[in-house]
Amino acid sequence: MSYKSMSGISVSTDVTRKILIIDCADAQGLIAKITGVCFAHQLNIVNNKEFVDHAQGRFFMRTVLEGDINEAEFLKAMAEVLPEQNHLKLVDAGTKRVVVMVTKEAHCLGDLLMKSYYGGLDVEIAAVVGNYDILRSLVEKFDIPFHFVSHEGLNREDHEKAMLEVIKPYDADYVVLAKYMRVLTPEFVAQFPNRIINIHHSFLPAFIGASPYKQAWDRGVKIIGATAHFVNNCLDEGPIIKQDVISVDHSYSAEDLAHQGRDVEKSVLSKALQLVLNEQVVVYGNKTVVF
Amino acid sequence: MSYKSMSGISVSTDVTRKILIIDCADAQGLIAKITGVCFAHQLNIVNNKEFVDHAQGRFFMRTVLEGDINEAEFLKAMAEVLPEQNHLKLVDAGTKRVVVMVTKEAHCLGDLLMKSYYGGLDVEIAAVVGNYDILRSLVEKFDIPFHFVSHEGLNREDHEKAMLEVIKPYDADYVVLAKYMRVLTPEFVAQFPNRIINIHHSFLPAFIGASPYKQAWDRGVKIIGATAHFVNNCLDEGPIIKQDVISVDHSYSAEDLAHQGRDVEKSVLSKALQLVLNEQVVVYGNKTVVF
Amino acid sequence: MSYKSMSGISVSTDVTRKILIIDCADAQGLIAKITGVCFAHQLNIVNNKEFVDHAQGRFFMRTVLEGDINEAEFLKAMAEVLPEQNHLKLVDAGTKRVVVMVTKEAHCLGDLLMKSYYGGLDVEIAAVVGNYDILRSLVEKFDIPFHFVSHEGLNREDHEKAMLEVIKPYDADYVVLAKYMRVLTPEFVAQFPNRIINIHHSFLPAFIGASPYKQAWDRGVKIIGATAHFVNNCLDEGPIIKQDVISVDHSYSAEDLAHQGRDVEKSVLSKALQLVLNEQVVVYGNKTVVF
Amino acid sequence: MSYKSMSGISVSTDVTRKILIIDCADAQGLIAKITGVCFAHQLNIVNNKEFVDHAQGRFFMRTVLEGDINEAEFLKAMAEVLPEQNHLKLVDAGTKRVVVMVTKEAHCLGDLLMKSYYGGLDVEIAAVVGNYDILRSLVEKFDIPFHFVSHEGLNREDHEKAMLEVIKPYDADYVVLAKYMRVLTPEFVAQFPNRIINIHHSFLPAFIGASPYKQAWDRGVKIIGATAHFVNNCLDEGPIIKQDVISVDHSYSAEDLAHQGRDVEKSVLSKALQLVLNEQVVVYGNKTVVF
Repeated sequence: MSYKSMSGISVSTDVTRKILIIDCADAQGLIAKITGVCFAHQLNIVNNKEFVDHAQGRFFMRTVLEGDINEAEFLKAMAEVLPEQNHLKLVDAGTKRVVVMVTKEAHCLGDLLMKSYYGGLDVEIAAVVGNYDILRSLVEKFDIPFHFVSHEGLNREDHEKAMLEVIKPYDADYVVLAKYMRVLTPEFVAQFPNRIINIHHSFLPAFIGASPYKQAWDRGVKIIGATAHFVNNCLDEGPIIKQDVISVDHSYSAEDLAHQGRDVEKSVLSKALQLVLNEQVVVYGNKTVVF
Repeated sequence: MSYKSMSGISVSTDVTRKILIIDCADAQGLIAKITGVCFAHQLNIVNNKEFVDHAQGRFFMRTVLEGDINEAEFLKAMAEVLPEQNHLKLVDAGTKRVVVMVTKEAHCLGDLLMKSYYGGLDVEIAAVVGNYDILRSLVEKFDIPFHFVSHEGLNREDHEKAMLEVIKPYDADYVVLAKYMRVLTPEFVAQFPNRIINIHHSFLPAFIGASPYKQAWDRGVKIIGATAHFVNNCLDEGPIIKQDVISVDHSYSAEDLAHQGRDVEKSVLSKALQLVLNEQVVVYGNKTVVF
Repeated sequence: MSYKSMSGISVSTDVTRKILIIDCADAQGLIAKITGVCFAHQLNIVNNKEFVDHAQGRFFMRTVLEGDINEAEFLKAMAEVLPEQNHLKLVDAGTKRVVVMVTKEAHCLGDLLMKSYYGGLDVEIAAVVGNYDILRSLVEKFDIPFHFVSHEGLNREDHEKAMLEVIKPYDADYVVLAKYMRVLTPEFVAQFPNRIINIHHSFLPAFIGASPYKQAWDRGVKIIGATAHFVNNCLDEGPIIKQDVISVDHSYSAEDLAHQGRDVEKSVLSKALQLVLNEQVVVYGNKTVVF
Repeated sequence: MSYKSMSGISVSTDVTRKILIIDCADAQGLIAKITGVCFAHQLNIVNNKEFVDHAQGRFFMRTVLEGDINEAEFLKAMAEVLPEQNHLKLVDAGTKRVVVMVTKEAHCLGDLLMKSYYGGLDVEIAAVVGNYDILRSLVEKFDIPFHFVSHEGLNREDHEKAMLEVIKPYDADYVVLAKYMRVLTPEFVAQFPNRIINIHHSFLPAFIGASPYKQAWDRGVKIIGATAHFVNNCLDEGPIIKQDVISVDHSYSAEDLAHQGRDVEKSVLSKALQLVLNEQVVVYGNKTVVF
């Protein structure tokens, strides 16, 4: 079995593969020390990327490792060569598990379901949760559980509590908002820090908030787009993972923009999700480093 | 009900809509005469596009008409104002019916199924025919008949005859080759003149024939792409409807190229199909006019 | 001699060509009536495009005409078939004249100068006016007058008055702000209604105002862009003509964004200008119809 | 002073910077060993990229180093940790010098001249050589020597000999063919191995050879493009550095394609050249690794 990262790296998973993510203060000799530890543990570096934010003196590294690894010893040795207050993460390169949240629209969900089905996205969709029951039949075609948790008659906190009760047991790596059209409270978001991925239907920061296509039509823009981002406490303001646009013209009504925008929404969401699943995305303040 | 053309024109089908396609020798006053006939028949022109190939003196026009129409009288009146040897076509603006042919790969088919399901593509998929049985379960999820017509043990003519027996009764407007990986004979193609749409996994005319991604890798190109075209008698040489590319780099293996190419293949095929379904494509020699 | 419109229409100017622009209330039979007048005046329609804004009931048409034309009679006949309160314009298809305003940056100006020099843009640059003297030597290489009108020691009104005194005598069709970095007053703008074209270094409406690249860097966007628009009284809020974006990533500093953005700025400005020069742009409220 | 690489890395050249390029058989521990040598020589790694071609077992690395460097000692130490038959190169990060060869068309040359003038391209254009005298006045505007070496009356060998006599004394790092429309002999190419950069006006391998826009028009393609590549002995078959395309449609004549193609030609050439100037391109067989 193998999967393909967005960066063009084929990763065979026949052998054990781990991904090492490091984020720490910059210092001289870091790459030598880090790769020295890998070499000392007889690990093969399949792929390696670094980034230094020179302005802020911060070092980032993502390394795909192959070989038998004693994790505890390896991490201990690694921590010894790093500056203090580093973030150090060693994760499996395998398939991740997500729960998808939806409202009424099928296109983003449909693309995730289909790509997951044929192997275009290396993900296990554990369940789909909707605040409407509309997308049940689509989800169940793929033998994935669909949970209808209506928001009607509930205040936001109670609705989210009901959602959480459904979502939590799936123990998902990530929660994907595939056109889930309600704002989440900070309390909900805090349950999944930097683990909720949203698709917003504009090229942020343009057209924050409701009805971006109507806003775009009113302004007469010649491009529309979509933005996948992690969700934090401020609406549409979390760290951006991926953005793309398409060209439009005067002949598009606001409905036409919404219709044409679907393709870029689903494409941006699935590309962003693949990057996240591959552990290619490191959150850093309100930004991302995308290896 | 409404659908959205690729050119950004929302078409409400609450009232009767017809699409008029004209292709004839260029002459002075043609637009005045043609739209004059429309006006005389009290038809409203919802959308109108013309193209003149000045080099070859050929005139093309596509007009979306609204209103009660006496087709026979209208066409008679229209023919009288056109030069001889014109092509004149008046078709409904509604949903078209297609049969899809496949081999083993799911991504193009999956996209057509999903878009058809949620209304992203204005098409009725009447049936799917495969020379392998692999994609049956995907198709049947959507309650669409799947026909397995194996090529094994049959010569090409007999296999195609068996395919035709399955396809013909569906009386499809178009046949879509969604990664059908066998060459069709002129006899088969002649059954559906300019009505078979293929997706080729390269930016034609580069990498004609087998294994375009391998060819692309060997050549070290920095872009890969896909081409949707009508099928004629020469392999990969029919009139091109739509092409697109994506950027790649040295880090992609031939398998990576194939994997990444899936997205552009499915996107190009479904955009080309929508153009054809909307009657926006006029074949002209070995080229297309795409309104 | 011939030039090439952005829409792909080769226009030979060996014969007299005129462009007819109509903007009026929608009505049945308009195309028939308008093209009927053209036919009656024995004019050949070289290229024709219409657009109907169905929501607002507004009709737009751009027609390239060839032939001997009695302008007064033609326009009188045309006005008679149009609804009242129409806008009707008949202009030569030939080269237009512009004055360019600059501050310190050379890239947009340089592209206009170079394209004008080798025929990549069908324009006569009558003069360049700068509020710094920095770009004089570049402009004078091309034997075009450069006027230095410093803003130092002057209030905005007096500076603009001095600019106008320099600009007015050139009797330019359009004024192009090629990275002119000062805000213009409504009084200045009123001298050239819908005739001042600006390039803003962001994909508007994102990052309005000062330092858009710094804003983009702060937000961590994955695309940056540029917007060419007509200038009206509100900063960065006039009708958009053209927009484009490029992909960026975490490794770009704010300075890198500015550096990379130059290419898209100059490309968007020169494409927008060509559209305007070709009379392909109709302003309509705060939007444009771009034929 | 600083310049900006295409990969978004700002490189301040206030301190001494060197770029290390390594290309050798893959082996375990290479990164640790190489960066270990850098660390031992107290060099700071400003930027580092690696690529392993797993299929062929080949390792590539590009490292930007800062600090006082004893080149001989450093290279000796480095060679000791590398497998045999490595390629090891240590070059200055500063401005490179090129000679540009042209025929009649101004757009690619004009873009190089203008970008060089305003700092959009980090290059010194030492001279321009043309087989026509047409572009002299453009070149001389920028106070750069223009040499007219007519091919008329000379056989190919003698013409190239005359060109070489002019070019050689400039001791250029690279020779740039900015629409130089004559085929070069292997003898000429051998003078500048992997140091001649050409722009071909198609998305290779489509439309090799003469009149690619005419070929594209004949085929009815919906995209056209350009390819920058190193020149080797086979026409249009050298290692590709950069490619890009633009969308076109049926309304473009062959001349229109050529006209519109200019923008993508000049953009691809200048991007490719910047990559080469930054030492981001490693030739490998008939391909390139572009860091």
